[in-house]
Amino acid sequence: MTTAEMFNSHPSETRLDRELLTRTVDALLSCAQACTVCADACLSGEEQDARMGECIRTDLNCADICATTARVLSRHTGDNAEVARAQLEACVQACRSCGDECERHADHHEHCRICAEACRTCEQACRDLLATMP
Amino acid sequence: MTTAEMFNSHPSETRLDRELLTRTVDALLSCAQACTVCADACLSGEEQDARMGECIRTDLNCADICATTARVLSRHTGDNAEVARAQLEACVQACRSCGDECERHADHHEHCRICAEACRTCEQACRDLLATMP
Amino acid sequence: MTTAEMFNSHPSETRLDRELLTRTVDALLSCAQACTVCADACLSGEEQDARMGECIRTDLNCADICATTARVLSRHTGDNAEVARAQLEACVQACRSCGDECERHADHHEHCRICAEACRTCEQACRDLLATMP
Amino acid sequence: MTTAEMFNSHPSETRLDRELLTRTVDALLSCAQACTVCADACLSGEEQDARMGECIRTDLNCADICATTARVLSRHTGDNAEVARAQLEACVQACRSCGDECERHADHHEHCRICAEACRTCEQACRDLLATMP
Repeated sequence: MTTAEMFNSHPSETRLDRELLTRTVDALLSCAQACTVCADACLSGEEQDARMGECIRTDLNCADICATTARVLSRHTGDNAEVARAQLEACVQACRSCGDECERHADHHEHCRICAEACRTCEQACRDLLATMP
Repeated sequence: MTTAEMFNSHPSETRLDRELLTRTVDALLSCAQACTVCADACLSGEEQDARMGECIRTDLNCADICATTARVLSRHTGDNAEVARAQLEACVQACRSCGDECERHADHHEHCRICAEACRTCEQACRDLLATMP
Repeated sequence: MTTAEMFNSHPSETRLDRELLTRTVDALLSCAQACTVCADACLSGEEQDARMGECIRTDLNCADICATTARVLSRHTGDNAEVARAQLEACVQACRSCGDECERHADHHEHCRICAEACRTCEQACRDLLATMP
Repeated sequence: MTTAEMFNSHPSETRLDRELLTRTVDALLSCAQACTVCADACLSGEEQDARMGECIRTDLNCADICATTARVLSRHTGDNAEVARAQLEACVQACRSCGDECERHADHHEHCRICAEACRTCEQACRDLLATMP
């Protein structure tokens, strides 16, 4: 809600579709937040085998990359299309990797199941936005 | 929505009220996002006097501090109550400072008006959460 | 080195001592980096008991808080002294908490020993800078 | 110095060259810090024309992207080679874009000249590391 209002009040033109941009930024913020809590929940779990270590690591990478991608997209005007595109592509990789990893634990950990969903939604939003970029 | 689901799936107990924690984290993420776009919108504006420089600076500080506070609260279990409290207090200062600065430009800039509101809401949520902490 | 050069090329006056500011920012960046690697090394270790979970959590909080404090100090001019002071105080708490936790594992983990040292150095630099602030 | 010590104390094997990894992470942290101060110095300057707005925007993007890339590389073990590679590629774009923009102002602003150098060094380190990745 705030995201849409803020983009609508921005004085500059952009070649990106504002509705799609808003949806992507909101998906990025939700995904970053889900990954941060998922990493913490994995740390608190009983079964701390090597596999959960890998899940925490992909969570942390995905949280950092989604947060940075949301910021780059929030500075969407100007001449930075190449940077935004490359960052979105890195984000697609991070969301795919984290979605795959969390899905492996979805049956045992509700937090991994929800986080995997947030990653899939975010990956798709990034792909949709990339498809509209020149 | 994702924030609430994620906290509810977390395996650990917490002494914090989950509904209030959720509301605070969501307010922090909204405020960080509003400040990031407000800084960019201020950069794009025509009147780039020294006062807008100050507004951009408080926006950037508030965005970084809110994002970090959201992360610290997302790792809310365990023994880190003192760290969480000190970080929330820093966040109250950042939101107050940025809310005051943006309010000065609210009549001329819609993005500053919305951002000031996001800062006030976030400051209040942080104060409410602080009031429940031992 | 870069930190000193950059502060010396900044056009604005500041009431803070530039040599001390530089030392603090460098300590913050080193500490954030040490905490990020320490968390990852703890994840890779064999003994992943609940205590290492607590160490990872304090590492992650300290990394985020130090990184944000470095940014706030890098925007050290202007009217934000109250925000900088509150953020430095939160950072002192984070470094103390993480230094204490890492010290518990210093005998078994070289990465915890080095990280504890980085936390102590950073905590002291933050306290020294705070002592000069009005 | 701390970066090298921390990587050397990490218990896991990595296919990356540790000396090159250390150099890249240090270049990323220096570049992120230079960009953060450069943005603030640009805000403080007298000539706040639209061109400086573009410089600040590329500084902020580059600071966020370099900081995130340093974190991803600090979690360099495990199965995340694809994510690390994509994030390094985004970082090459960000450093190139910011180096180009800062170079335009290097004659008038010492902070832009130093920042452009930090961007070039960082871009090269990222390219060198990418060249060694499978």
